[in-house]
Amino acid sequence: MGSDYPPSLRCGLPGLILSLETAFILIFWFCFSNESGSTPKDLDIYPAFQDVNVLVILGFGFLLAFLKRYGFSSTGFNLLIAALGVQWAVLVEGFLFSSSAGKMKISLHSILKASISVTAVLISAGALLGKANPIQLIWMAMVEVAAFVTSRWINVKFLKVEEHTSLMHVPIFGTYFGLAVSWWLYHSSLSEKVEKEKSNPISDLFSMLGALFVWMFWPSFNSVLIVDLMERRNAICNTYYAIAVSAVAAFALSSLSSRNGKIRMTYLNSVLKIHDTCGVHYMFGLPGLLGAIVNVILFIIIKRANLSGLGYLALIEVGSFMLTTAIGLGTGFITGFILTFKLWKTLPASKYFDDQAYWEFPHLAYRL
Amino acid sequence: MGSDYPPSLRCGLPGLILSLETAFILIFWFCFSNESGSTPKDLDIYPAFQDVNVLVILGFGFLLAFLKRYGFSSTGFNLLIAALGVQWAVLVEGFLFSSSAGKMKISLHSILKASISVTAVLISAGALLGKANPIQLIWMAMVEVAAFVTSRWINVKFLKVEEHTSLMHVPIFGTYFGLAVSWWLYHSSLSEKVEKEKSNPISDLFSMLGALFVWMFWPSFNSVLIVDLMERRNAICNTYYAIAVSAVAAFALSSLSSRNGKIRMTYLNSVLKIHDTCGVHYMFGLPGLLGAIVNVILFIIIKRANLSGLGYLALIEVGSFMLTTAIGLGTGFITGFILTFKLWKTLPASKYFDDQAYWEFPHLAYRL
Amino acid sequence: MGSDYPPSLRCGLPGLILSLETAFILIFWFCFSNESGSTPKDLDIYPAFQDVNVLVILGFGFLLAFLKRYGFSSTGFNLLIAALGVQWAVLVEGFLFSSSAGKMKISLHSILKASISVTAVLISAGALLGKANPIQLIWMAMVEVAAFVTSRWINVKFLKVEEHTSLMHVPIFGTYFGLAVSWWLYHSSLSEKVEKEKSNPISDLFSMLGALFVWMFWPSFNSVLIVDLMERRNAICNTYYAIAVSAVAAFALSSLSSRNGKIRMTYLNSVLKIHDTCGVHYMFGLPGLLGAIVNVILFIIIKRANLSGLGYLALIEVGSFMLTTAIGLGTGFITGFILTFKLWKTLPASKYFDDQAYWEFPHLAYRL
Repeated sequence: MGSDYPPSLRCGLPGLILSLETAFILIFWFCFSNESGSTPKDLDIYPAFQDVNVLVILGFGFLLAFLKRYGFSSTGFNLLIAALGVQWAVLVEGFLFSSSAGKMKISLHSILKASISVTAVLISAGALLGKANPIQLIWMAMVEVAAFVTSRWINVKFLKVEEHTSLMHVPIFGTYFGLAVSWWLYHSSLSEKVEKEKSNPISDLFSMLGALFVWMFWPSFNSVLIVDLMERRNAICNTYYAIAVSAVAAFALSSLSSRNGKIRMTYLNSVLKIHDTCGVHYMFGLPGLLGAIVNVILFIIIKRANLSGLGYLALIEVGSFMLTTAIGLGTGFITGFILTFKLWKTLPASKYFDDQAYWEFPHLAYRL
Repeated sequence: MGSDYPPSLRCGLPGLILSLETAFILIFWFCFSNESGSTPKDLDIYPAFQDVNVLVILGFGFLLAFLKRYGFSSTGFNLLIAALGVQWAVLVEGFLFSSSAGKMKISLHSILKASISVTAVLISAGALLGKANPIQLIWMAMVEVAAFVTSRWINVKFLKVEEHTSLMHVPIFGTYFGLAVSWWLYHSSLSEKVEKEKSNPISDLFSMLGALFVWMFWPSFNSVLIVDLMERRNAICNTYYAIAVSAVAAFALSSLSSRNGKIRMTYLNSVLKIHDTCGVHYMFGLPGLLGAIVNVILFIIIKRANLSGLGYLALIEVGSFMLTTAIGLGTGFITGFILTFKLWKTLPASKYFDDQAYWEFPHLAYRL
Repeated sequence: MGSDYPPSLRCGLPGLILSLETAFILIFWFCFSNESGSTPKDLDIYPAFQDVNVLVILGFGFLLAFLKRYGFSSTGFNLLIAALGVQWAVLVEGFLFSSSAGKMKISLHSILKASISVTAVLISAGALLGKANPIQLIWMAMVEVAAFVTSRWINVKFLKVEEHTSLMHVPIFGTYFGLAVSWWLYHSSLSEKVEKEKSNPISDLFSMLGALFVWMFWPSFNSVLIVDLMERRNAICNTYYAIAVSAVAAFALSSLSSRNGKIRMTYLNSVLKIHDTCGVHYMFGLPGLLGAIVNVILFIIIKRANLSGLGYLALIEVGSFMLTTAIGLGTGFITGFILTFKLWKTLPASKYFDDQAYWEFPHLAYRL
């Protein structure tokens, strides 16, 4: 396994986690209070809130569990950065978006928005899969959440984008932030695929499980924040149709693109290929594109009558999209550069894609 | 592995999928519109809608993943035919059941009914597991959805069966349609079980996972379309009791029926044994029977008072049940005959039960 | 594998199950009726009811599936004792808590409370994992459900604890009952860990899946019975925060406690180590403690104003907690003693932790 041992995280990781957690609890204590007053509406979103929770914790965790020797890290670190990231996102969101002077309010709504923001980090983590240690992931999560909430704040404040729409930029932001960071962690020795970087049928099935959860609950993710009930209903139906068409199209394209017409599981599973940027693109680019086309078609179907304002709205949409992409790429680039410092106990490339760098195995012979 | 390669699906599969999808989108465009007006009720069913969605996409997908070399196909093709089938079912349903003259309406309700209709196809696909290629499965899905919706239409229109009740015939229809089709795909060389046709402990656990999802969300499946809240509540409670008793009884019967009192996982998992019709029967026959008995008991417990109309209602119930079974067997028989044509690039029996006929493996040694 | 065969359950198991089930159905028939009247409220809890159902059936089932040769028993017996236990819990609950004279009412609410009560049994079963046969587990479930409901009845009747609070003692009761029973099933030959008692990466991933379901739906479990909407909302938010902090802290502590800073999956998965009591403690002790601390912090944050009644309330809380623990330990001790009788076809210690004692394998070579 090579003679260079991965650096021990014994001092770094627990210290970092515990000090962040202490800081969060203290800030929380002094600046936040549970929202009071009548809140029947807040509970109405609870089922969809749980759908998003499952998508974030279980869906993304297992979606990334396709590397045959990296299942523990994929699911475990996903939980770690989601649980830390949500707390941080609630704080940042509270400071940037809170309007009134008094204590900031905590509600089911704020946790939900934080969960959605955190998916940006989980998508970026997919682009770094197997190459970043938990210390790097945690720092990335802190920076990225702050950057994404700031990007949303700019969108909402200056471009007058609706808050719900600004949150729907999260896959784009996560993708480009992640790609920019991953550019720095690239290592020339990775140009040819190592054995550990492959999947096997079992890890692929676990990944399929996660992918299905993301797929099934995407309508909830897309609609939960929409206030108007009619629009929410339409968002659910349209998203359902968009993902159904995407899934079907993925089968056709995967079969078309292979030599002998066979389907590639990684293609379907929207596998986030490592240091191979097209992975993330396939996941949130291609289906996003297809979904967008279908959405536009449906949009035109529905609103054929009044097409007057469409042009201006599309312009704002495109502008806000470009801004989000630019902030994602820029902050990701800087973050990636900082993450290469030795300080973070970076992993030698020979230890990439291997659970054994971080996890204790009672069973020595690792055989997935 | 034999010298006869499985026929490449390169030209057939993508062409079929893309032309169907294009047709669906065009029909949709010209004939459907999003339902407008106040629809708070529509959103009320969203949590149960998601339960049904999970049951259909994840439950059935993993339920069928018990063959040790067929996990990709089981979960993947389940998603493919579900996603295509739902779109088709919305269209067929719209044309047959839509009353008014104008554009047909699309709502959460229509997608939900389409999801329930599509389970007929997924059950039938279980009876063909490992023996049909995706082209055959897609054609079967198209025919079966049309046949099932037509069967429902006859039930609702002429037997005056309630729409909700007619949809609850979906397991019966799927079972007998599937058995009739599978009769044609039977091959004498399959009389003794090949190695690939077995499960292994891991694939059995994945199958258990799917079975549990089907089991847990069956109350939602059974109740979601009932309008009256009291009746819906009762349907949930009764279904819950019925499946609890079924699960417990399955343990007892499995232990009784084996030589040494051991329990068979395939029995529990309601494994849909291939070309062995009793598999499907055990899954949707035996538990259905047990559930029916318990339901009748509960029914009598509740309604002991007014037993007058029970006889007539039971007659209609039995008649409608027989009709559905007959249509399922008949259309299934014809469909099965058509599916044996060489045109569909049928698989040689030596390639049955093997993911490698359809899926690309980066890892050559397939070891589940 | 040793020459001592595990005793056949052929006569015992089906007989026990079928007679219990018959008894349940008869009691149900004569003493219960579906609740009638307007029940829109009952349906409001249905989404959270399903969350609890998933937690109980799927979460606990897979959480315990970490032993590499015991996956079938973990998931299968969990389903068996949950399905039997819920029916029994509804009956016991009905006889002890029902106030009016007429027929007892069955509703979604009573099934929900029964599901929550049954988690005590599932937790205890975790402490016996691999050492008890299904006959023993079923008897334990019957006794434990009765003991827990009685303990709740004493709490509610004499200590005037709220019904919701008394149900939240279920993890404590289950833990101490299970530890007391497991004391009797301990065998000196178990002092060193046998090969079969270990996990492997795949079984650990399945266990992670179950653990995530328990984790994600814990807020539903904690809040579903609270009537006041504001309090329910607060319970959801506080539980969410408590488990997020627990998960993060578990990473830090696991890394701190290992020699080289590596994380132990079993630690995270809150693995219920067998005959090693600390397993159960880690699962429901440590996180419970952490959660309690955070809850207290949040509680003080929220209610800083009126601290007057806190002391008395805390006293009742502690007293009721001690009482529950004592009843759990006492009844568990007696139950454990009874379960050692030969009558129950106890397993020889050499057959512990092995699916092959109970399950038929079509594939002889068991290779997980």
